[in-house]
Amino acid sequence: MQLDHSGLEILDEDQCRTLLSRATIGRIVFTHHALPAVQPVNFAVSDGDIVIRTSRTSRLARAAADTIVAFEIDEFDTAARTGWSVVVVGPARHVADPGDAAALEALPLRSWAPGERDHFIRIRPGLVTGRRIGGPVAAPAS
Amino acid sequence: MQLDHSGLEILDEDQCRTLLSRATIGRIVFTHHALPAVQPVNFAVSDGDIVIRTSRTSRLARAAADTIVAFEIDEFDTAARTGWSVVVVGPARHVADPGDAAALEALPLRSWAPGERDHFIRIRPGLVTGRRIGGPVAAPAS
Repeated sequence: MQLDHSGLEILDEDQCRTLLSRATIGRIVFTHHALPAVQPVNFAVSDGDIVIRTSRTSRLARAAADTIVAFEIDEFDTAARTGWSVVVVGPARHVADPGDAAALEALPLRSWAPGERDHFIRIRPGLVTGRRIGGPVAAPAS
Repeated sequence: MQLDHSGLEILDEDQCRTLLSRATIGRIVFTHHALPAVQPVNFAVSDGDIVIRTSRTSRLARAAADTIVAFEIDEFDTAARTGWSVVVVGPARHVADPGDAAALEALPLRSWAPGERDHFIRIRPGLVTGRRIGGPVAAPAS
């Protein structure tokens, strides 16, 4: 078990990608009007990329295109004081090609919010890091 | 019920502050080496400020001092597709005064990570926003 300088267990990239493939809610971190911004989103993984569905005119679509973003997932048990988090940093880009967008329609990715959400953003995970505290990662809910 | 342009219910500042007072885990969003960074932390609220406990030499302590950060809490029920999030944006500062730090020792704020965590960071919520999707905010766990 490898620990970081804070005493947290370091998750390797395979563990992080497994956790990403199981999760459905994450938080995208970007800059909006020169200020740090963060927004929860539901997502899916496709070819190793984080895929988010939004509307073309959303704050997210405007702010998170062709820029470097962070994306975070986590799970904590406050009673047991255990948990883990995975952070991805990489370029976000709009999916402009209609064929690519049509392929992404097949993902299990339906927006929770009402209204048309026909626009996809892909985040290519350049840097994938994870930490765990206080025990093993819980098995996925069955 | 007021909706934003995405069809999400807008939580007012009182609702947001109530949710902040109940939560114990949030995510601080900052810039590290010119890249967006996000890190889960446990926290407490004191005089309306978000208070985080860390070590003086942590990445967080170095990156999040005397700068504008975002701080996010949320709760989602993926089966019911309901949830809420609150985002605070404001200046983060180190608590340098020993008297102030001693007063913060009384908070219910014990770091989950091992090692000495005798350093406090305060975030003054300048902008407090919240959104809810798909139903009322759950009552706090008793």
